[in-house]
Amino acid sequence: MSAQDIRLDFERQSRLGFDEAIFCSGKTVGHLATILDQARDRGASLLLTRISVEQVGALPDAHRSAIDYEPVSRTGFFGRVGRPDKAARIAVVTAGTSDVPTSREAVRTLHYYGESAFEVTDVGVAGLWRLLDRIEEIKKFSIVIVAAGMDAALPSVMGGLVPGLVIAVPTSVGYGVAQGGETALRAALASCAPGVVVVNIDNGYGAACAALRMVRAL
Amino acid sequence: MSAQDIRLDFERQSRLGFDEAIFCSGKTVGHLATILDQARDRGASLLLTRISVEQVGALPDAHRSAIDYEPVSRTGFFGRVGRPDKAARIAVVTAGTSDVPTSREAVRTLHYYGESAFEVTDVGVAGLWRLLDRIEEIKKFSIVIVAAGMDAALPSVMGGLVPGLVIAVPTSVGYGVAQGGETALRAALASCAPGVVVVNIDNGYGAACAALRMVRAL
Amino acid sequence: MSAQDIRLDFERQSRLGFDEAIFCSGKTVGHLATILDQARDRGASLLLTRISVEQVGALPDAHRSAIDYEPVSRTGFFGRVGRPDKAARIAVVTAGTSDVPTSREAVRTLHYYGESAFEVTDVGVAGLWRLLDRIEEIKKFSIVIVAAGMDAALPSVMGGLVPGLVIAVPTSVGYGVAQGGETALRAALASCAPGVVVVNIDNGYGAACAALRMVRAL
Amino acid sequence: MSAQDIRLDFERQSRLGFDEAIFCSGKTVGHLATILDQARDRGASLLLTRISVEQVGALPDAHRSAIDYEPVSRTGFFGRVGRPDKAARIAVVTAGTSDVPTSREAVRTLHYYGESAFEVTDVGVAGLWRLLDRIEEIKKFSIVIVAAGMDAALPSVMGGLVPGLVIAVPTSVGYGVAQGGETALRAALASCAPGVVVVNIDNGYGAACAALRMVRAL
Amino acid sequence: MSAQDIRLDFERQSRLGFDEAIFCSGKTVGHLATILDQARDRGASLLLTRISVEQVGALPDAHRSAIDYEPVSRTGFFGRVGRPDKAARIAVVTAGTSDVPTSREAVRTLHYYGESAFEVTDVGVAGLWRLLDRIEEIKKFSIVIVAAGMDAALPSVMGGLVPGLVIAVPTSVGYGVAQGGETALRAALASCAPGVVVVNIDNGYGAACAALRMVRAL
Amino acid sequence: MSAQDIRLDFERQSRLGFDEAIFCSGKTVGHLATILDQARDRGASLLLTRISVEQVGALPDAHRSAIDYEPVSRTGFFGRVGRPDKAARIAVVTAGTSDVPTSREAVRTLHYYGESAFEVTDVGVAGLWRLLDRIEEIKKFSIVIVAAGMDAALPSVMGGLVPGLVIAVPTSVGYGVAQGGETALRAALASCAPGVVVVNIDNGYGAACAALRMVRAL
Amino acid sequence: MSAQDIRLDFERQSRLGFDEAIFCSGKTVGHLATILDQARDRGASLLLTRISVEQVGALPDAHRSAIDYEPVSRTGFFGRVGRPDKAARIAVVTAGTSDVPTSREAVRTLHYYGESAFEVTDVGVAGLWRLLDRIEEIKKFSIVIVAAGMDAALPSVMGGLVPGLVIAVPTSVGYGVAQGGETALRAALASCAPGVVVVNIDNGYGAACAALRMVRAL
Amino acid sequence: MSAQDIRLDFERQSRLGFDEAIFCSGKTVGHLATILDQARDRGASLLLTRISVEQVGALPDAHRSAIDYEPVSRTGFFGRVGRPDKAARIAVVTAGTSDVPTSREAVRTLHYYGESAFEVTDVGVAGLWRLLDRIEEIKKFSIVIVAAGMDAALPSVMGGLVPGLVIAVPTSVGYGVAQGGETALRAALASCAPGVVVVNIDNGYGAACAALRMVRAL
Repeated sequence: MSAQDIRLDFERQSRLGFDEAIFCSGKTVGHLATILDQARDRGASLLLTRISVEQVGALPDAHRSAIDYEPVSRTGFFGRVGRPDKAARIAVVTAGTSDVPTSREAVRTLHYYGESAFEVTDVGVAGLWRLLDRIEEIKKFSIVIVAAGMDAALPSVMGGLVPGLVIAVPTSVGYGVAQGGETALRAALASCAPGVVVVNIDNGYGAACAALRMVRAL
Repeated sequence: MSAQDIRLDFERQSRLGFDEAIFCSGKTVGHLATILDQARDRGASLLLTRISVEQVGALPDAHRSAIDYEPVSRTGFFGRVGRPDKAARIAVVTAGTSDVPTSREAVRTLHYYGESAFEVTDVGVAGLWRLLDRIEEIKKFSIVIVAAGMDAALPSVMGGLVPGLVIAVPTSVGYGVAQGGETALRAALASCAPGVVVVNIDNGYGAACAALRMVRAL
Repeated sequence: MSAQDIRLDFERQSRLGFDEAIFCSGKTVGHLATILDQARDRGASLLLTRISVEQVGALPDAHRSAIDYEPVSRTGFFGRVGRPDKAARIAVVTAGTSDVPTSREAVRTLHYYGESAFEVTDVGVAGLWRLLDRIEEIKKFSIVIVAAGMDAALPSVMGGLVPGLVIAVPTSVGYGVAQGGETALRAALASCAPGVVVVNIDNGYGAACAALRMVRAL
Repeated sequence: MSAQDIRLDFERQSRLGFDEAIFCSGKTVGHLATILDQARDRGASLLLTRISVEQVGALPDAHRSAIDYEPVSRTGFFGRVGRPDKAARIAVVTAGTSDVPTSREAVRTLHYYGESAFEVTDVGVAGLWRLLDRIEEIKKFSIVIVAAGMDAALPSVMGGLVPGLVIAVPTSVGYGVAQGGETALRAALASCAPGVVVVNIDNGYGAACAALRMVRAL
Repeated sequence: MSAQDIRLDFERQSRLGFDEAIFCSGKTVGHLATILDQARDRGASLLLTRISVEQVGALPDAHRSAIDYEPVSRTGFFGRVGRPDKAARIAVVTAGTSDVPTSREAVRTLHYYGESAFEVTDVGVAGLWRLLDRIEEIKKFSIVIVAAGMDAALPSVMGGLVPGLVIAVPTSVGYGVAQGGETALRAALASCAPGVVVVNIDNGYGAACAALRMVRAL
Repeated sequence: MSAQDIRLDFERQSRLGFDEAIFCSGKTVGHLATILDQARDRGASLLLTRISVEQVGALPDAHRSAIDYEPVSRTGFFGRVGRPDKAARIAVVTAGTSDVPTSREAVRTLHYYGESAFEVTDVGVAGLWRLLDRIEEIKKFSIVIVAAGMDAALPSVMGGLVPGLVIAVPTSVGYGVAQGGETALRAALASCAPGVVVVNIDNGYGAACAALRMVRAL
Repeated sequence: MSAQDIRLDFERQSRLGFDEAIFCSGKTVGHLATILDQARDRGASLLLTRISVEQVGALPDAHRSAIDYEPVSRTGFFGRVGRPDKAARIAVVTAGTSDVPTSREAVRTLHYYGESAFEVTDVGVAGLWRLLDRIEEIKKFSIVIVAAGMDAALPSVMGGLVPGLVIAVPTSVGYGVAQGGETALRAALASCAPGVVVVNIDNGYGAACAALRMVRAL
Repeated sequence: MSAQDIRLDFERQSRLGFDEAIFCSGKTVGHLATILDQARDRGASLLLTRISVEQVGALPDAHRSAIDYEPVSRTGFFGRVGRPDKAARIAVVTAGTSDVPTSREAVRTLHYYGESAFEVTDVGVAGLWRLLDRIEEIKKFSIVIVAAGMDAALPSVMGGLVPGLVIAVPTSVGYGVAQGGETALRAALASCAPGVVVVNIDNGYGAACAALRMVRAL
C-alpha cells in the first residue's frame, strides 16, 4: 500500500481530544511504517493497538526504538509518553486472568492519556468472596471498567453493587458456546442491573475511550 | 386427529419411573380429549404441561373435573393426586417474578411425583443481598433448580456458592438480545462455576425430571 | 401469582440511587396490582416501563389515578413526581420519528429522577444537513443518548463529532435485515468512532440509568 | 503476565469441594508456570485441563515432573494423586471414538477426585445393536455421562432407556452443520426424553463436576 | 392481484410428472379463486397445500364443492381424485402425534398421485420399544419418510436399521431451542447414519415428491 | 407523537432527486396525519409505503381523498400524480405470484417518479421454459429488477443471461429455512453470476430508487 | 487412543449393505492404524474419507500399500477393490470445478460399491447454456447427484428439468455470505422445485449412500 | 484435477460482455495452470482474483510472465492488457486503509475492462470532515463504489449526499461483532438512505462488474 492510500485523522485530537489510534492486527510492516512516517513528519503521537511482538520487531530501527511497547496488552505508544501522574479516577476489573490482555489494553489507553487506573484482577463471580473482599474499594470509583468472558456475570453483579458508571467489556475468553465472546456480549447487554453499558468484544481500547470522554467532564 | 394416530408410552412408568407427560400447547381440544380417553381407559395418570385456562375450560366436563389445574404453571394432574408429604429435598429458586411460571412448572412436576420443593423467589444478582440473605438455607439442599432469564447470572453465582447439583433453567424472560431466552441459555452453559447443568429454555418440567432421576438414588 | 412470589428490591435506592423499575410487558393486571400494593404499603415510588394504555386502564382505580402516565414512551410514575427543574445536562437524540418511543422512555426515566433532557429528533444521517444544523447545540452536552434503528449510522457519526459520552440505544425499527434491532445493535458496537457505548435494543430506560450514574458524579 | 495479575480461588475446595481447575488452552508457558508456583507455594493441588503435550514439555523441569499427564484427554494432575479405588459409581459413554478426548476428560476429572468410571465407547445409535448389547450394564449406574457429537441422538435414546441422571456432553465432532458442536448441543437440549441435562460443548470436565456434586450426596 | 399476475406452470406435468401445487398459506381468497379459475378453464388438477378450513370455507361455492379437503394435513385436491389403489410402496413414520400434520401432508400428496402409504405414528426414540416393535414391518419398504421435531433423533436411528432410502422431514414441533424446527433440521443433516436425506422443515409435500420421483423408477 | 417530534427531510428532493418516502407500517393514524399535514402545508408530495387499507381508511377524509392508493403494493401517492408516460426503461420481474406485492412496490415507486415499468411475473426457475420464453424481451432492458423468495435462484440465472444491471430484491416468501427471506437474501448475495446487486428483503422501494438513480444518468 | 477405545460396526454390512466408513479428518495416524489393524484382522474392507496425502504417507507401509488412494476426493479403499463394471445408473453433476472434490467423493463411494457414475462438471447456472447442452443426457438418469456451492441455484434448476431423484450436496465453496456452505445448504432446502432432497455440506459420501440405498431397489 | 474436470465459460464475453474471472483462493497451482492452458489455447483473456504472491510465484514461467500482477488487490490480468484510457466515470471510495485491498480489486477489475476509476481513500464517518472535504468531487460521478467494514456507516452517509448509484461493498475489516463483515453487510442492506445497493462481503470484483453493466448503457 502506498503513502497516498493512507490519510490519518490528525484533526481528531482537536475535535474529540483523542489522537488517532492504529489497529495493527493484519497490517503489514510496510503499511505500519508508512503510518509512522506520516505521524513522525507531523510531530503527531499515535496509540498502536493489537500490535504483536513480531510486528514491532520487524519495524525499521528508528520507529521501533520510538515505541513504548507493552506485550500483554499488545499496545505501543509512538511519540507521546504516557505519564499517569494523577490519582486513579477509574477502576479496571477482570473476572479472570485470561481477561487481562483486554483489561490491560484499557489501562494502557488510559495511561497514554495521562490517567492512572486502579486494577483489580480475578474477581469472577464463581468465587464471589473474591469480589466482596474488594467491593468497598471499587465502589469509590465513579467509573468502573469490567472485562469478563464466558457468561460475563460479573458486570451484572457489579452493576448491582456499584453506583458509578459500569462499562462492560465482553472478552472472547472461553470455548464452546462462549467462543468468540458473543455469549459474554449478549449477557452483558441483557444485564439485569440498571444502566450497565457495553462495548465491542475485547475492546479494552473503546472502554477506556468512553471512560476518558466521561472523566474529562468530571 | 383420530385415536389411532395417538399411541401413548404407558410403559414409560416401569422403564423410567415417569408417567408420560403431555405437552398441550398447540394441541386441539379434540386431540387432548382423545389422549385423556386413552389414559382413563387404562387407568393411567398423566401430567399435563403448558395447558391454558382456555384449553382446560373447553374440555368435556368429565375430563375437566378430573384435572387438578394450577394456572401460573399451566399444569394439570390427571388421575394422580400429587401429595408432597415428605420434607423438601429439592430447592427451586428464581431470579425474578417473571421466572415463576417456569419454576412453578418444576415445583408442580415434583408435587405430581410426591416431592416437596423449597421455593425461593426474586433473588436475582442485581440485588445480591437478597440472595446472600437466603444462601445458607439454600446450601442445605443437595439439588438446586435455578430459573433465570435475561443474562442468567444467577446460576453461575449459585454454582459458586452451593456444593450440591445446580440445574439451570434459562427462561425466555427479557427483550432485545434476551428475547426468547437464547442469551440466558448460552450464559448458563458458559458458566464459570464448575458443574452447572442446563435444560432447554423454559423447561421447568425437564429440570424437575432431572431432579427426580437424582433424588431417587439418594 | 400471589404476593409472596414477589419480593421487590426496595433497598436498591440506598445502594445504587435507583428505585426499582417494573418492566410491565407480559405481566398480568393482578401481578401489577400486587406490586403496586407492596410499593404503596412501604411508601415507595416505582418507575413503570413498557406499560400499555390497556394495562393502565385495567388497574384498580386507586392505583390508576396514582400513576402519571405517558403513552408514547409507555411509562408511568407511581408515587414519585418527576420534577426536572434543573437545566438539561443530557441530550437525547433520535435518527427518526420511529425511534421516539425509545428516546422518550429515556427522557421520562431522566424526568423521574429530576433530570431535564435536551431532545433532538429526526437527525438521521440520510439527511446529514439535519444533523449538522444541530450539532453545535448537541456538542455542549457531556452526555448524549442516541436512539437509532436500521443501520444505526448516527451513533458513529455522533461519536466522531461530539467529545462527550455517546450512549447508543439501538432500536428495533426497520424490516428485513433490520428487524428486531440486531443490525442496529451490532453496527453500534462495531462503531468506527472511539468510545461509543451501547445498551440493549430499545432500552431507553437503561441508557438513562447509565446517564444518571454518570451525571451524579459530575 | 506477572504474578500479581493472578489470584487463584484456593478457598473453592472448602466452599464447593473442588480444587481450582486451570483451563490451559491459550495460556503461555510463563503464565502456567506462575500459576503452578502459587499452587506449590501453598501446597495446593490443581487439575490442568486442555493442556497440550507441547505446553507440558515447555514447562520448567520441576513443574513438568510434578504433573501426571494423560495425552488423549489433555489433562494433568499437579500435586494430587488420583486414586480411584472405589467401585465405579458413574458410567461414561461415547457415541464414537472421536468423542473419546472429551469423555476421557470427564474420566480423568473423576479420577482426580478419587472416583472410578465405567467406560463404554462407540455405542452411537447408527449401530443400535452396539448400544443394546451394553444397556443392561449401563442401567445399573445412577449417573450416566454421554459424550456425543454430530446429531447427538445418543443422549435421547439413553434418556429413554436409563432411569438415572443422564448428563449429555455435546462434542464438536463433525463437519458442515455439525461443525463446532452447536447442532449436537441443541439436539441434546431439545431431547424428547425427560430430564436429560446438558453442559457446554466438549466440556467433559463440567460433566464430571456435575456428577461429583451429585455423587457426594448419595 | 389480477389474473394476469398469475401464470401457472401447467407444463410441469409433462416435464416432471407433477401437477403444480399451490402453497395457500398467506394467499387471499381472491388470489386462490383466480388460480382455481385458471385450472378449471384448462381442465387441470391442482394439489392445494397449507390451506386452512377458513380459506376453503370462504371460496365460492363452485370451487369449494370441487375440493376434496382434509383438515389435519390442510390439503385439498382440486379436480383430480386421489385413488391409492395399489399396495403401499412407501412407509410414512412419525416420532410423535404433533408431527402428524406434516406426515399426513406427505400421505395426502402420495394419495393425490395414486400411491398408498403405510403409516406408523408415535415411535419416537424416547420410548425405543415402540419403534423396535414395528421395525420389521418398516424395513420391508424401500422408501421410508420420517417426520420428527425437537431433536429429530428418529431419522438417525431409522437410518441405522433400515436399508432403504430414509427421507427425513424435520418438523417445527418443540419450544425453546427446538422452536421453528431448525434444531431438528440440523440434527437430521448431521445424522450419523449413512445416506439419510433431508427436506425443508415441515415439508411433507416435498418428501412425498421425492418419494414419487423415486418410486416411478422402481 | 406531537408535531415537533417529526422533522421531514423536504430538502431530499433537491439533494438527491427523491421526495421523502414514509414507511407507514407500525405508525399510528395520528402520526401519519401529522406527517401529511406537514407535507400539505409545504405543498410537498410524499410516497407512502407499507400503508394498509385499514390505515388509509382511518385517515381524515381530506387526507384520504388526496391519496392515490394501490392495495397489492400497499403504496399511496400523496400530492404527486404518477404519470409514467415514457416508454419503459426498466424491467421488473418476479419468480412467483407471492413476490408480486414486493415487485409492485417497485413498479409504483417508479410510477411515482414518472417511469414506466415492463412487468413479467411467475418466471421462477423451477419452470425454466417460462423464463426462456420471455428472456429476449427482458434482455432489451439495461436495468432489470428481480424479486424472488425461497432459494432466490432467479437473480443468478438472470445475471447470467442479461448484460444489463440486475437488482435482486429477496422476498420473505417461503417457510422453514426460507422464512423471513434470509435465505433468499444470502443466495442473491452469493450469486455465481458477476455483478448482481442486492437490496434489503422485501425492499421493492429501494430497488426502484436504485434504478432511478441509474436511469437519470442514461 | 488404545485399541479398546475403538469398536467398529462390522455388522453394518449385513444390516444396511454398507461397510463402515472412516472419516479420517482429525484422526491421528496411530488412531487410523489401529482401525486398519482391526479391519485387516477381521478381513473387512473399509472406505476411508477425508484422508489427506499426508495421513496416507504416514501410515505403516503394509497399510499404505493396501490402500487404493485418490487425492482429489481424499478417499481410500482398504481391502475392497471397487470395480464399477455396470453401466452408470447415477449421474453426478457439479456447478463449478471447485465442487469437484465433493462430487468425486460421491463418485468414489459409488465405485467402492461397484456402481459407475456419469460425471458432468462445470454446468453452473451463471452460464445456463452449459447446462442446457447436457440436460438431455442427464435426464436419462433416475438419480442425479448435484454438488453446488455459493448460491446453489443448480439443484433448483435441475429439479425443474429432471424427473428423477435430485440429491443436492451443498458445498462450502465461496466466501463472504457463502463461506462454510450454509447459504448453499439453505438455498437447496428452500428450493422452489418439488422433491429435491439434501445432505450435509460437502457430504459427497452421504449423497452416494442415499443413491446406493435407492439403486438397490431398482 | 484433470483438464476434463474444467470447462470454462468462454461464451460469457459474447453473452454478458465479461470474460470469465477465476477466483484463485484455494485452487492448487496445478489447477490454475490447467485453466491458464485452456485460456491460452483459445487465445482468451482471464481476470484472476484472490491470487496470492505465492500462487503466482509457483506457476510455470510462461504463465507467470504472462500475468500482470498487483499484490494489494491480489489480482492478475492474463492475456488482456488493461488500458484505462478514458476519463474516469466511476468513483471508488473507502472508509479506511484496511478496506483498500477490496476497493483496489474493484479498481483493477475496471482497469481490465478499460475503465479508469477515481479513487478516494480513508474518508470514514468517524472523521466526517474528511468526507465533506471530498464530497463535491465525488458527487460528480454517477456511479460510486463504497468499500467499508466495521459498522459500514459510510454507504448510508454517501447515499444521502450523492444522487448517483451507490454500490456498497461491505468488508471483513474489524473484530468482535465486526469480524467476517456480517455487521457491515447488514448495516449496508439496512441503510436509511434510499437506493443503496449491496454486493457480497469483500466482493470488489462484483461491485466493479455491476458498475460495468451500468456504464455500458450510459
